[in-house]
Amino acid sequence: MRTLFSDVTAVTMDGERRVLPHAWVSVEGDKILSVDLERPEGSFDREIPGAGMVLMPGLINAHTHIPMTLLRGYGGGHDLQTWLNEYIFPAEDRLDARCVRAGTALALAELVSCGVTAIEDMYYFCEDMIQEILAAGLNANICRGTTCFEHLERPEEYQPCRDLQDLTERYHGCNGGQILIDASIHAQYTSFAAPNLWEYLGRFAADHGLGMHVHVSETQLEHRNCQRHHKTSPLRLLDSYGVWECGRGIAAHCVWCSDTDMELMRKKNISCAHNPVSNLKLGSGIARIPEMLKAGVNVALGTDGVSSNNSHDLFEELKLASLLPCGVHRDPVAVTAMQALEMATVNGAKALGRHTGSIQPGYDADLILVDFTRPGLIPCHDVVENLVYSARGSDVRLTMARGKVLYENGSYLTLDLDKIRWEVEHYAMPHMFG
Amino acid sequence: MRTLFSDVTAVTMDGERRVLPHAWVSVEGDKILSVDLERPEGSFDREIPGAGMVLMPGLINAHTHIPMTLLRGYGGGHDLQTWLNEYIFPAEDRLDARCVRAGTALALAELVSCGVTAIEDMYYFCEDMIQEILAAGLNANICRGTTCFEHLERPEEYQPCRDLQDLTERYHGCNGGQILIDASIHAQYTSFAAPNLWEYLGRFAADHGLGMHVHVSETQLEHRNCQRHHKTSPLRLLDSYGVWECGRGIAAHCVWCSDTDMELMRKKNISCAHNPVSNLKLGSGIARIPEMLKAGVNVALGTDGVSSNNSHDLFEELKLASLLPCGVHRDPVAVTAMQALEMATVNGAKALGRHTGSIQPGYDADLILVDFTRPGLIPCHDVVENLVYSARGSDVRLTMARGKVLYENGSYLTLDLDKIRWEVEHYAMPHMFG
Repeated sequence: MRTLFSDVTAVTMDGERRVLPHAWVSVEGDKILSVDLERPEGSFDREIPGAGMVLMPGLINAHTHIPMTLLRGYGGGHDLQTWLNEYIFPAEDRLDARCVRAGTALALAELVSCGVTAIEDMYYFCEDMIQEILAAGLNANICRGTTCFEHLERPEEYQPCRDLQDLTERYHGCNGGQILIDASIHAQYTSFAAPNLWEYLGRFAADHGLGMHVHVSETQLEHRNCQRHHKTSPLRLLDSYGVWECGRGIAAHCVWCSDTDMELMRKKNISCAHNPVSNLKLGSGIARIPEMLKAGVNVALGTDGVSSNNSHDLFEELKLASLLPCGVHRDPVAVTAMQALEMATVNGAKALGRHTGSIQPGYDADLILVDFTRPGLIPCHDVVENLVYSARGSDVRLTMARGKVLYENGSYLTLDLDKIRWEVEHYAMPHMFG
Repeated sequence: MRTLFSDVTAVTMDGERRVLPHAWVSVEGDKILSVDLERPEGSFDREIPGAGMVLMPGLINAHTHIPMTLLRGYGGGHDLQTWLNEYIFPAEDRLDARCVRAGTALALAELVSCGVTAIEDMYYFCEDMIQEILAAGLNANICRGTTCFEHLERPEEYQPCRDLQDLTERYHGCNGGQILIDASIHAQYTSFAAPNLWEYLGRFAADHGLGMHVHVSETQLEHRNCQRHHKTSPLRLLDSYGVWECGRGIAAHCVWCSDTDMELMRKKNISCAHNPVSNLKLGSGIARIPEMLKAGVNVALGTDGVSSNNSHDLFEELKLASLLPCGVHRDPVAVTAMQALEMATVNGAKALGRHTGSIQPGYDADLILVDFTRPGLIPCHDVVENLVYSARGSDVRLTMARGKVLYENGSYLTLDLDKIRWEVEHYAMPHMFG
């Protein structure tokens, strides 16, 4: 299958961060074939006219828990402990595989319609999620978030570790790399009793070429408790057990990370998955992103689970990732539009270990068309400014992942929205909430 | 004309803040006629089915400069002074009436599609704006932002004051109250040379029953300079010249207002028009909204001009108005979803002096339908949580102002989008930017 995007404005996110006003971008199979300023030779199975459209790399959501979409807005208006203990945890206890599939499919519909082509997800019922994702067609790094509240004799026999072994064997790299498996410690404070689990998972990730995804210093309480008990930060405590030796870490949140933590992140290629909305909504605080960028940390962007967002529209995060530091530092260029766009594209690709996030020959054909003829995107003095500050997920006209169109003009090509709605309303909701 | 919304979920924003799951709301002429839990008797010219839809009051944008939509994204990526002096001011110098009309119409298209039914706008070329607004059909309080950099002998003869006299006479209350005129001092620091202008405008507003709209303490520099030169804040300095005597003030931004300022705001019914996005984007800071609410100040919500936002989607402000204080105070209930929704509806109505912002018999029929069948609004555990944290302007299916449908299913009924695009692209852009 060969597809040609004709005469589009291409935001390449290549090394020179070029914006090409009249570009022809061709796709063959699941890869970008060419980027030209003239129509390339040869014939194409489909030609997509690009007038008024901006073609950019699909967005990368570097931290989410997609089945939690079923909990959108659930238990809102309460303090954090009440919300978790009386709402979220009991609801999650009632999840079954079919609920997870329904929540996953619903999330995928929202993600794809908002221009997301790759996610990094930490949850459980991973195989059910993977089946839905394979059918939907977008890229996903999936990890089984591992908690442990007791001492373990043999971590390799602990069920979540068995799950990881099994997932890695069966799905890591499957369908030409559509699915990657990462290792995951849910967080230091949810596995404090089993440091040998940390050692095991760190080694497993390194041995199998997986990334390592951990919630790190999300709240001040978590960061301080670790500091008090262990005289070091969660990030560094885990490091002392070899957790980051795989060479591709994802530390979600990092709201309370210190300068020393940032130095370690840079050295060991631990990306920060920044979740500005969730950090505000849960009252966690505001991550020190300009400091991280200055320290050379790779900062990617995530929504976190919809239960604490309450949306999967990464365009919102894009805007806030730039604006929040501008307000906090009272500096209108504290984080520029381009820096925010990098977080959601090239930096996300680096965090996920994927050849995506940029429009260049040989890269995965993960591409979206944003409709710049909509009133909210007129006029266009600067394409990147409009993308970051004016565009919304709903301005996405077409989403392509791995060379395949998943969504176009409001219609889904791989997902059945009516069926998804039915499953959520008639199975998942009654099952979970009576 | 009698219209019936059938079997909708109605978010009333009445005194009890009721959410009615199966409601029938009828409209006659430009007013809400009834709100029932059963189908009302009588016949209707049109019946709008409400299944899956949420009916809520149209949103109120309490601070904007709509012609500046022409400057969306213009000069981004620069510090504040460069942005203003090298980009915004020179571009505004090149505005003419036709550009203003094009920019106004473009803004109205964006506003109406995002569910805004009333605005409070400060700019110049007011008559041109009013003509476009009258045709478009939404409600507007219009004021001529008055600056003055020289001493005035007779303020009543100063051109902006003559404009105000003229606008008041010709348009205040016109078309059944669709247009209201307010008085306006652009800001204390842009009129410091003419305190007798302040006296004049304060008296004029009081004498003619107008509101008074002023930029107040937007930046620390502005606030500190006033404090240094006058030993008091901008808000109180203006008060000593009778500026707020009209009894309905709108103080835009209020980022640096003190507790004493807030006390005065409560006493004299000066609403804060809170612009969270713009305050972040320009590096102005983060307004102390929980403190204002505690002090009893009426807080309304605005986008500010699109040049510093860069969107007119008030749903974004709604979300941020709640989330920002939660993050800053590390308290997930610092400003609740309902408090944010009040800002954009009932509080906005109070700021504008309008009988809108609530679904009650006798109120202006300013109503919007939000499509809760979209993937981003499923499931719905709590209607208000979904409206504030999950909905976007693009989820608005229908916008009615003063009983008339202005926008429905992506189509405009009073605006010609193709013509607007043409005017922006072929007249305004070449005229202003060569």
